[in-house]
Amino acid sequence: MNGAETLVATAVRHGIEVCLANPGTTEMPLVLALDSVPGLRGILCLHENVATGAADGYGRMAGKPAMCLLHLGPGLANGLTNLHNARRAFTPMLNVIGQHATWHLPADPLLATDITAIARTVSDYVKENQSAATVATDLAAAIEAAMREGGSVATLIVPHDSQTGAADSPSPMPRAQPQKTYSLDRVTRCAAALKTGNSALLLGGEALSEAGMMLAGRIAGSKGADLLCDTFFARMERGVGLPPVARLPYFADEAVKLTRRYKHVIVAGTRRPVAFFGYEGLPSYLIDDQQTVMLAGPREDAVSALAALASDLGAPEWSAPTTGSPPALPAGILNAQSISEVIAHMQPENCIVMDEALTVGEPYFEASKDAPRFTHLRLTGGAIGQGPGAATGAAIACPNRGVINYQSDGCGAYTVQALWTQARENLSVVTIIGSNRSYNILNVELARARVTKLGPTARSMTSLDDPHLDWVKIAEGFGVSSVAVETPAALARELEIALAQKGPRLIEAIMA
Amino acid sequence: MNGAETLVATAVRHGIEVCLANPGTTEMPLVLALDSVPGLRGILCLHENVATGAADGYGRMAGKPAMCLLHLGPGLANGLTNLHNARRAFTPMLNVIGQHATWHLPADPLLATDITAIARTVSDYVKENQSAATVATDLAAAIEAAMREGGSVATLIVPHDSQTGAADSPSPMPRAQPQKTYSLDRVTRCAAALKTGNSALLLGGEALSEAGMMLAGRIAGSKGADLLCDTFFARMERGVGLPPVARLPYFADEAVKLTRRYKHVIVAGTRRPVAFFGYEGLPSYLIDDQQTVMLAGPREDAVSALAALASDLGAPEWSAPTTGSPPALPAGILNAQSISEVIAHMQPENCIVMDEALTVGEPYFEASKDAPRFTHLRLTGGAIGQGPGAATGAAIACPNRGVINYQSDGCGAYTVQALWTQARENLSVVTIIGSNRSYNILNVELARARVTKLGPTARSMTSLDDPHLDWVKIAEGFGVSSVAVETPAALARELEIALAQKGPRLIEAIMA
Repeated sequence: MNGAETLVATAVRHGIEVCLANPGTTEMPLVLALDSVPGLRGILCLHENVATGAADGYGRMAGKPAMCLLHLGPGLANGLTNLHNARRAFTPMLNVIGQHATWHLPADPLLATDITAIARTVSDYVKENQSAATVATDLAAAIEAAMREGGSVATLIVPHDSQTGAADSPSPMPRAQPQKTYSLDRVTRCAAALKTGNSALLLGGEALSEAGMMLAGRIAGSKGADLLCDTFFARMERGVGLPPVARLPYFADEAVKLTRRYKHVIVAGTRRPVAFFGYEGLPSYLIDDQQTVMLAGPREDAVSALAALASDLGAPEWSAPTTGSPPALPAGILNAQSISEVIAHMQPENCIVMDEALTVGEPYFEASKDAPRFTHLRLTGGAIGQGPGAATGAAIACPNRGVINYQSDGCGAYTVQALWTQARENLSVVTIIGSNRSYNILNVELARARVTKLGPTARSMTSLDDPHLDWVKIAEGFGVSSVAVETPAALARELEIALAQKGPRLIEAIMA
Repeated sequence: MNGAETLVATAVRHGIEVCLANPGTTEMPLVLALDSVPGLRGILCLHENVATGAADGYGRMAGKPAMCLLHLGPGLANGLTNLHNARRAFTPMLNVIGQHATWHLPADPLLATDITAIARTVSDYVKENQSAATVATDLAAAIEAAMREGGSVATLIVPHDSQTGAADSPSPMPRAQPQKTYSLDRVTRCAAALKTGNSALLLGGEALSEAGMMLAGRIAGSKGADLLCDTFFARMERGVGLPPVARLPYFADEAVKLTRRYKHVIVAGTRRPVAFFGYEGLPSYLIDDQQTVMLAGPREDAVSALAALASDLGAPEWSAPTTGSPPALPAGILNAQSISEVIAHMQPENCIVMDEALTVGEPYFEASKDAPRFTHLRLTGGAIGQGPGAATGAAIACPNRGVINYQSDGCGAYTVQALWTQARENLSVVTIIGSNRSYNILNVELARARVTKLGPTARSMTSLDDPHLDWVKIAEGFGVSSVAVETPAALARELEIALAQKGPRLIEAIMA
């Protein structure tokens, strides 16, 4: 075996199943090893931010990393923003980055960059491999790092001569990893806070799993507390039969208005929430220090902590309300509300909804609260262009669940190349573009900042019109069949057709 | 004035004319300042790598920077690879990156990243502004840094509260910058080397300007030396009437075979050339240490050094050969040779050819040697996805020259969003996609490495078929009219039509 082959063998032995790649010359031995060592499915992406976005979506659904195989520093740089989003989501991520042959690097070839420095900005773990003999152990260490504390970004840099060099070392076996923990002392403090009344539980991370939410429902029900969740949760189990949860509003003033109702906010599975941007006169933190009672952070075992808290409080089982049904099909024009309602009305049980719809998707959280059970993924790090890749990865991880990618046009235009991978792999992703032909969030921010009269430059910087994007042509250009609709009824009809078929489809919802 | 307005006023006073932007909430005061302070043309790009690629193309043609206005660390990260290419091209580049309000940053909002660390990987100069009062002087320093030694990447990070804060300081006036220099001692050594015969001059950077090449032609003519140039030059004046120059081959074995013919290689305007990748058994450097005689590096005044050398040698004026004409229109099928010949046959005098055509464009350098005078730009840093943006920027800098973007399909798919900016700004860019439906350079590399039987994964990682990209639809989706051709005659006919019109057009040349 050569180093590249030991790398693939080690990945397979550690349960890695998928390699999302855009390789170059320096990674060719690894590409050849994908054929000579069976077990790792290679999937080509036409842009690295599609590969890393797909790995994020895959990791959120599979609970283990896909391998991203990227070409040198530029390949890593191109995929950096979706690694940023994955880092904020605590997704297990494994990057393998090719490097020039060690003897060639001192000459500073044109493609050379400081890969380690780039990787460090998004990675919890970065290692530069030094020889073929240690490729297997280095990869095993990177996989362990990726799985640490629920999910981290791990990056291994492998020089070309380490890939081609002889490496007869057997690939190491997976080792048992330390479990996440929680604090009994904090459980006691949270119980005491809840007993004073007028509390809320703010949930994020694993507290938004089915188990976490059922426990949170028990606790809330027994103490009359409300349930809140992060604005930009990574993954939330949702739909009928789960306890009602209010999402923290995006804008700091609205969020603070909500949280100030409570004496205590118990935080489980996430950190003390922070305003997306700083607004003069408003705090950075959306709950006051005095209000905050930490149960478990994002790196701790929030589900066990919630179980201990429920037990401490002697909370009875939470019983799902028997009422609740998805919204009716709306009439009228296509806008944020009606598109959201159509999706919530139509979405099948057990589907996955990736939601990077920003202002268009704002009503969707509320509209979908009584939809059949589904998994809801959101943009976690604020770096736009996540949806197309993440939906692709979710479909790779869960080929039988069906994926809806509810996507704003401005964000979607960042990573259109994901459509090609959906087509090539025949993934059942239905992309719904909420086409408002603007970076509308900027218009909203400007209006809130009381900027009422925009000059021509500011107008041009927030508009995606002149010309407008023709999403049907773009999708078909990348191999995905597509249709545009202009009414809620047409959207519902096309969504029904798209959900019934195998393979990808894109629906452009042209907003009034 | 607020800080943002002093920034724009300073930029205008320093001769900056264009702002290529994809702004977000943290940059809104700067966007508003583009309206309130006249003189800077704001141009929206739908992806940051289009903005930085366009700034690279603009800077190469204008000899001064455009301003790139990007949103926080993720915006910078998205544009990083074309900043890498610009760094390798020594293009003057000015990045203005918005930052969270200083009081908000300690709370680590979701979009926060280490902007400085990301910027340092591509920038010669990075500064984090500290207050509204110093925004103007910080920008002036960044512009000076961008212009330093012919061209550097300068990045200024401006917090939101520095943009909105009061800043009555007048914008500083431009200061005279130190001139580039050269070494008379090295001129003498180069003259001595040339007198021994059997020499070549390797030209790069400013030595490939018209003045530099005419001087190099004088020197070569007087001493029987050959002229060579960098494989991936940033900008070269070319066409009939300029001295003949051989380009260093891409592959190290071929390059070394060429350079080993010479006793001395005089290097002017560039560095000692390095193989693009390291190949076992071949050197990193394409000319031996003993062969190398440095006249002027890329940061030195290569044109003045060549003038001094020509004078030292008493070289007579170089006279252009009166023969030479572009290739005839080829018959037969569309392949790399015929596409290159059609372009060289059709291209009008004084046009700009951005060439990121890789294997498809390989024959173009030779085919175009007797075309009417034109400017030839190439991918300089090896990070693919440069052409669409750089062609856009070249057209912004030179609206009356006409731009041909000769583009391979794999690279072009990275930055398709550039087409939208071409459409919105009605730029006369004709994109010719050499559509071989593969990452063909990888196939060539594998064949040269004697890998003859590819497994299914390796095949899938180098192929862009299944499905193939429909470039006509992609271009029309982004607002650019488009046509596909399958013969040299059809390509010539469509190229003639495209060149005659104002505004962008894309021609997909589907290869046999």
